[in-house]
Amino acid sequence: MLQPRFILDEWKIIEAGFEPDYTLDSESIFALGNGMMGTRANFEEKFSGNTMQGTYIAGVYYPDKTIVGWWKNGYPDYFAKVLNAPSWIGIDVEIDGETLDLAKCKILKFERVLNMKQGTLLRSFTVMMTNGRTAEIIAHRFISMADPETAAISYSVRITGGTGKLSMMPYINANVHNEDSNYGEKFWEDTQVTVNGSSASVVARTRKTGFVVATAMASELRADGKHVTALPEIVTGNDHAGTRFITSYGDGQTLEVRKYVSVLSSLHHEAAGIDMKAIDAANRAISEGFDILLVKHIDSWNDIWEHGDIVIRGDVEAQQGIRFNIFHLNQTYTGEDPRLNIGPKGFTGEKYGGSTYWDTEAFVFGFDLNTRDSHVARNLLKYRHNHLGKAIENASRLGIGKGAALFPMVTMNGEECHNEWEITFEEIHRNGAIAYAIFNYTRHTGDRDYLAGPGLEVLIAISRFWAQRCNWSVHRKKFVILGVTGPNEYENNVNNNWYTNKMATWTLRYTIESLNWLKSERPADFSRLALSTSLEYSGETELWQKIIDQMYYPECSERGIFLQQDGFLDKELKTVDDLIPAERPLNQNWSWDRILRSVFIKQADVIQGLYFLADEFDEKTIRRNFDFYEPRCVHESSLSPSIHSVVAARLNDIDRAYKLYLRTARLDLDDYNKEVREGLHITSMAGTWLAIVEGFGGMKIVSDKLCFNPVIPASWESYSFIVRFRNNPVKVEVNGKYISVKNIATGEVPVAVFGSEIVIAPGKDHIFYK
Amino acid sequence: MLQPRFILDEWKIIEAGFEPDYTLDSESIFALGNGMMGTRANFEEKFSGNTMQGTYIAGVYYPDKTIVGWWKNGYPDYFAKVLNAPSWIGIDVEIDGETLDLAKCKILKFERVLNMKQGTLLRSFTVMMTNGRTAEIIAHRFISMADPETAAISYSVRITGGTGKLSMMPYINANVHNEDSNYGEKFWEDTQVTVNGSSASVVARTRKTGFVVATAMASELRADGKHVTALPEIVTGNDHAGTRFITSYGDGQTLEVRKYVSVLSSLHHEAAGIDMKAIDAANRAISEGFDILLVKHIDSWNDIWEHGDIVIRGDVEAQQGIRFNIFHLNQTYTGEDPRLNIGPKGFTGEKYGGSTYWDTEAFVFGFDLNTRDSHVARNLLKYRHNHLGKAIENASRLGIGKGAALFPMVTMNGEECHNEWEITFEEIHRNGAIAYAIFNYTRHTGDRDYLAGPGLEVLIAISRFWAQRCNWSVHRKKFVILGVTGPNEYENNVNNNWYTNKMATWTLRYTIESLNWLKSERPADFSRLALSTSLEYSGETELWQKIIDQMYYPECSERGIFLQQDGFLDKELKTVDDLIPAERPLNQNWSWDRILRSVFIKQADVIQGLYFLADEFDEKTIRRNFDFYEPRCVHESSLSPSIHSVVAARLNDIDRAYKLYLRTARLDLDDYNKEVREGLHITSMAGTWLAIVEGFGGMKIVSDKLCFNPVIPASWESYSFIVRFRNNPVKVEVNGKYISVKNIATGEVPVAVFGSEIVIAPGKDHIFYK
Repeated sequence: MLQPRFILDEWKIIEAGFEPDYTLDSESIFALGNGMMGTRANFEEKFSGNTMQGTYIAGVYYPDKTIVGWWKNGYPDYFAKVLNAPSWIGIDVEIDGETLDLAKCKILKFERVLNMKQGTLLRSFTVMMTNGRTAEIIAHRFISMADPETAAISYSVRITGGTGKLSMMPYINANVHNEDSNYGEKFWEDTQVTVNGSSASVVARTRKTGFVVATAMASELRADGKHVTALPEIVTGNDHAGTRFITSYGDGQTLEVRKYVSVLSSLHHEAAGIDMKAIDAANRAISEGFDILLVKHIDSWNDIWEHGDIVIRGDVEAQQGIRFNIFHLNQTYTGEDPRLNIGPKGFTGEKYGGSTYWDTEAFVFGFDLNTRDSHVARNLLKYRHNHLGKAIENASRLGIGKGAALFPMVTMNGEECHNEWEITFEEIHRNGAIAYAIFNYTRHTGDRDYLAGPGLEVLIAISRFWAQRCNWSVHRKKFVILGVTGPNEYENNVNNNWYTNKMATWTLRYTIESLNWLKSERPADFSRLALSTSLEYSGETELWQKIIDQMYYPECSERGIFLQQDGFLDKELKTVDDLIPAERPLNQNWSWDRILRSVFIKQADVIQGLYFLADEFDEKTIRRNFDFYEPRCVHESSLSPSIHSVVAARLNDIDRAYKLYLRTARLDLDDYNKEVREGLHITSMAGTWLAIVEGFGGMKIVSDKLCFNPVIPASWESYSFIVRFRNNPVKVEVNGKYISVKNIATGEVPVAVFGSEIVIAPGKDHIFYK
Repeated sequence: MLQPRFILDEWKIIEAGFEPDYTLDSESIFALGNGMMGTRANFEEKFSGNTMQGTYIAGVYYPDKTIVGWWKNGYPDYFAKVLNAPSWIGIDVEIDGETLDLAKCKILKFERVLNMKQGTLLRSFTVMMTNGRTAEIIAHRFISMADPETAAISYSVRITGGTGKLSMMPYINANVHNEDSNYGEKFWEDTQVTVNGSSASVVARTRKTGFVVATAMASELRADGKHVTALPEIVTGNDHAGTRFITSYGDGQTLEVRKYVSVLSSLHHEAAGIDMKAIDAANRAISEGFDILLVKHIDSWNDIWEHGDIVIRGDVEAQQGIRFNIFHLNQTYTGEDPRLNIGPKGFTGEKYGGSTYWDTEAFVFGFDLNTRDSHVARNLLKYRHNHLGKAIENASRLGIGKGAALFPMVTMNGEECHNEWEITFEEIHRNGAIAYAIFNYTRHTGDRDYLAGPGLEVLIAISRFWAQRCNWSVHRKKFVILGVTGPNEYENNVNNNWYTNKMATWTLRYTIESLNWLKSERPADFSRLALSTSLEYSGETELWQKIIDQMYYPECSERGIFLQQDGFLDKELKTVDDLIPAERPLNQNWSWDRILRSVFIKQADVIQGLYFLADEFDEKTIRRNFDFYEPRCVHESSLSPSIHSVVAARLNDIDRAYKLYLRTARLDLDDYNKEVREGLHITSMAGTWLAIVEGFGGMKIVSDKLCFNPVIPASWESYSFIVRFRNNPVKVEVNGKYISVKNIATGEVPVAVFGSEIVIAPGKDHIFYK
C-alpha cells in the first residue's frame, strides 16, 4: 500500500507544506475545469521551479505534424492535440521590488486545498522576503460551473514587518507552447491585443485549424476588503496584456486583486468582434463580483453532487478516492456539445493530446448514462455517428470497403491520429466498444429512436468491417481474425484475440437482432435505412450469421478457460508473485520484447469480455478465467483494476475487489503508476465509479429491469449512489444488512434485487434484505 | 519484363540522351568507389535540376539522434549514418559569363558511359549557350583502385562559334549535409581551409564521433592537350576552397582542367598535419599525371576481373547484369580493414546509413569467400568478433544475460542503431547467419584456427542467447521461440518462425560439435576458451542438446511442408497470380496491416533455411516447400530472388531460376523496385553471384570437397566463373555439354561433379560430361 501524500478528508484534497519535488504532480491533482475549459494548478505569481504550464479549451486543437521512426503505409500525417491555450491565471507580484517566487523565497507556511464540494482551489502561504518582511498570500480561484466561459481569482497579500510598495499585475499571456510539440512549432498565430479602459483581451488563432480564442480580463484592487478606485498602468505587447497595480502597503494591511476572466472561442462565437465580446463578458463578471459568481458556481456543484455523489461511510480513504474521481469527471465533460468528448487526461496535461480513445465507450459511457440526463450519453453516440463518413474512409484506406467503418484509435474530428501500426491498424476492438455503447444506451434509456436511425447506421458499418476483416481458414474450417492487438497492449499483432473475436460476433448478432426488430416493428424506417446504407439485407445478414455460427474462439478445454489469443499457453505461465518488485512497473523496467513474450497482462482483456458480456457465461466459467488471468495481470493500464474489481465483486471475492477498488480510486492521489505529473487518468476514473455501482452494487440491466446484487467491503458501514434507469434517477443505499432503493424520479422503476422483483413508484423506496 | 533504360553491352553501362526525370536514378547507377570512398554520379559543373549529392568515406560515420513515434524500452538513442563527406568533384564552368548548367542549357547531345572493365565514368555532352556558341564537354573521372586515397578528373571544354572567355573553377566543398538527417542537423564542424600555392585542402571534423577528414586538390589547365602555365585565382571561404582558371578560348580550341584529389581521414592518419599531408598527396598525383594514374587504376581493375569475372556467352542482358553486380561489389568493399563492412547501399546513397546488416553474413560473405583471399572473409568475421562485448551488452539490456550475445540488427561500431521493436528486438535470426558464416568460412578455407579461438567465442555467446531466448512450453511439451520476426519482414512478432527455430538449433549443434572437436583435438585451446568464456561445458551443452532434441518446428504433415510460423495456414492461401498488377509492389500500395495478415511473402524465409541447410533435407521436401512458398513470394526485398533462384536451379527448375536470376542481376539496372534513385542494392548483388555459382553452377562444399552440379539456362551458350576452395582458385566453365574445372592454384583441389570425384593438380583441368 502506498503512503498517501495528502491529508485524508471526505471532501477535500489537502497538501500541507511545499514540496518542490512534487510541484508537477500537484499541478495535475489540483487542476480545475468546467467542461468548457481547464487549467493545471499552476501558480498565479511567477514560479521559476518545476512546472508544466497548462491551460486548455475543449475542442480547440491543432494537427501537429506527426513523428515516426519508420513510415508505414496508411499512417496519418498528423496527431491532433488539445493545445496549450492563452494563459489567464497570471498575477505577477513584486514586494518592494522583489519578485514573489516560491522557488526563491523562504517559505514559512504553505497549504493548498482542493474543495471538491465547492469546486474551488485555495492556496495560502507565508513567505519571508529578503528585506525581512513577511507576506501572507491567499489565492482563491474557480472556473465557473454556472457560466462556462468565466473564471475568477481572488489574490490577496498581507505584508507585515513594515510599510512599502506592492506591485500586482494580473495579465493574459498568449505566448504559450505545448511541451509535446513534435517539432517545437508554435501552434498559435496572429495574436491581437485589445485594451478597453482597464480591461483587456488577447485574441489568438490556431495555425492550420483556425480556431479563434479571445481571453479577456477585468480586475480590481481592494484594500482591507474594500474596493479601491485605482487606475492601473496598462502593460501590453504582441501577445500579452496586463494591468499593473502599484500601491503602498501598510504594516499588516491586506491588499487584494480580483481578476475576472472570460474565455470565448470561435466554437461558440463569431470570430469577428470576439475581442470586445470577451471584454464585455469580463466586465459583466466584475460587476457581478467575486462573491456572487462564487455562490452561483457552488450552487451548480451542489446540483452535481446531489445527483452524482457516492457516499461511503466508515472509510475516508475510499470516500476521498471516489469523490476525487467524480469531481474530475464532472470538471472534464458536461455532455452538452456533441463535438466534444473526453480526453484521457482531460484538462490536466498534454499527454494523449486530449483526443478521444475507446476509453469513452468502454468506461466513461456507463458513468454518463447513469449520472446524467440521457441526452448526454446520446451526445457521445452522436459524436461517433458524426464521424461515420470518416470511419468508412479510414477502413477503405486499409483495403476494407463496401461501407465498412473502422473508427479511429485516437481522434479529434473523426480522422485517425495514431501512428503505431500495431495500435492504429490492429487495435480494432475499439469498433466493438462503440457498438456496445449503442446497445448499452438502448437498454438503459429505452430510447429506440436512436437505434432505429443513426444507431443502426453505425452498427451496419461496423458489422461490415468485421465481416471483411475476418477470413475463412481452410485449415481450421472456421472464421479467424488475424493480426490484431487486443485491449492488453502488452501483446501486439496476435491472431484470434478472444475478446476481439467475441465482440465481433456480438456486434454482428446485435446488428441482426436490431435490424429484424426494425424490419418488423418499423418497416418504413427499415426501408429508409436499407436505402441510405445500401443494405442488401438477405445477403449481408446471411454472411454475418455464418460468421457468428462459425467463428473460432481460442480456448483450453483442459483448463476450462478462454485463451487471450492463439499460442497464449506456449508462454512461461508465471504469475505476478514471481516478479521481482524492483522490476515493476514492467513498462519502466523491461525491454519491450520481453514484455511482449511474457505472460504478463497490462489490462483486462478476456476479463473485459467477461465483464461486458457477463450474461453469456456462467459464474464458474467466469471464475476459472478470473483465477487464471487476474494473477497474471500487472494492471499497468489505469483502465484495468476497475474492471477486475467489478468482476471480483460479482464473484463475491470482496477482498480482492476492494483492493482493486482502492487501486483504481486512488490511482492518481497515491500515484500508483508514477506518472501523475503528466496529468490525471480522467477516463479511468469512470471505471472507479463502475467498480462501486456495477461491482459492489452489482447493478445490471436484465430483461428491462434494474437489478442489484450488492456486496459490501468489510471496512465500510454503508455506501450509497444514484443511478438512472429509463432516465429515472434511483437512489441506492447498501449496508451490511440490507439494500434500500428509492425512486427519486417521476416514473415507475422496475427493480430486481436478490431475486425479488418489484416496481417502485415515484417517491417511494423499498428495502431488500439479503 | 521491364524495358532496359541502358544500352545492352557486355562491359559498359551506356546512357544515351539526357533524361531530366532520371537524373537521380543515374546518379546511383553510375556511382564510383574504391572501398575507401565513393561518390554518386553527380555532375562536376553546377546542376540546378534534381540531384542528391553524395560523397562518402568508408568508416566515417555520425550517430544521428534517433527519431521514433512512440518510445519503447530498449531502443538505442542514435542511428549511425555514413555521412555525406566534403565533396571533391566540383568544377564550376562559365562560358562568356554564363553558367554551364544542364538543367538550363540547351542540350544537343548527351552520353554517359560507365566502363566497368576500367572503372571509369565518362560523360560527354554538347550544349548550346544563349550566345549561340556550342560547347562540347568531356568529363572523365575515376577513383583509384591502385591508390585508395586518390581520385582524378579530366574535364575538357571545346567551344565553337567564336572566341570568348572561359572560366573553370575546380573546388572542394565541405558545406554538405545529409538529406536523411533526422533533425536537419549539420554533421560536420570545425572546417579549416589550407592553401599552399595553387593546391588547397579543406579539413572537417565530424560532430560527436570526431573523425577528421582532409580533402585536398591540385589542378592544372591544359590547352589543346598541352599544360598551360597559369596562376589561377584562389577562392576560399570557411568551408570551401577553389582555384579559378580564367582564360580566353579560341574557336574550336579544347581547354581542359585536370583535377587531382586526395582524401585522407583520421582512420588512417594522425589528425595533426593531415591538411598538409593531403596537399602533398594531391601534389604527388599531379606530378604523376592523369594518364599514369589511370593506367595504374585500370591495371588494378584488370586484376580484379581476372580473378573475379563471370563470363556468360549468348546473353548480353545476363552478362551486363552480373558484371554490374561484381563491379559495384568491388567498388564497395576490398576487405583489408576489419573496421569496415558492407552497407546495403554502399557509396551510392544515404538509405540504411551505410551500416552493417545481416546481409553481410547471409549474402556477401559467400562472394568474398570465393572471389578473394581468405583473409577478407576472416576480416568480416573479425568485425563481428570485435563487437562481441557490445553484443553481450545488447542481449543483457533485453534481459538475456550470462554471456549471451545478440548482435545488432543494424550497426556501425557494434552498438544497435535500429529502432523498430519488431525488427530491433525480434529479428533475432541475424544471430544465426553470423554463426553460419563461421561454419561457412571454416568448411571453405579449412582454417580451423579461427574457429578454435574467436569463432567459438562468438558461437558460445550466440548459443547462450538461443538457450535463454527459447522457453519450454508446458502446453506443447516442446521448446518454443516466441515473439520473433523472421527474414520475411511482411510478418512481425510471430511465434515459432521455422527458419529462426531451425537456425537456433543448427547453431547449438554446430557449437557443440565444434566444442567437442576442440576438447579432443586441442585440449589446451579448449581450457583457455572455457576459462575466457566461463563455460560450464557439461551443464551448458546438456541444456543445448535438450533444446536441439525437443525444439518445436511448425509444419503441416498433410501438405508435407514446413510452416513459416505458427498460424500461417490460417491465412487466405492466395498466390501472387491473384494479385492485381496495379497494386504491386504491395509495400507501396497496401496498408501495412493488410500486408501483415496476407499470405504474401517479402523474401525467402523457409526457403532461406532450405538454402542454408540444404543437406538436411531431401529434394522432394525442398520441392514441396518451394512449390508452396515461391508462388506466394512477392520478392519485394532485393535479397529474395537470388535465393529462390539458387533453390530453383538446385531443383532443376531452370526456367524459373533464370527468370529469378534476371530479376536479381538487373534489379537496379532495370529498377524493378522503383527505388534505384535512393542508391543501389549492393549487398543483394552478392546474391546474384550466388545465383550463378551456387544456383546454375550447383557449387557446394560437401565432405571437404568442392562439388558442382551444374545446369545452364537455355539461352546461354556457356558461362564461367572462378571460386576458391582452401584458398585455391579454380576456374569453372559450363556449357550445354560439359563442365570444365581448371585448377589455377598452387595446391591440389578435390572436386566432385555429377557423382565422380577427382583431385585436380595445380595447373591441370578436367572435363566432366553430364
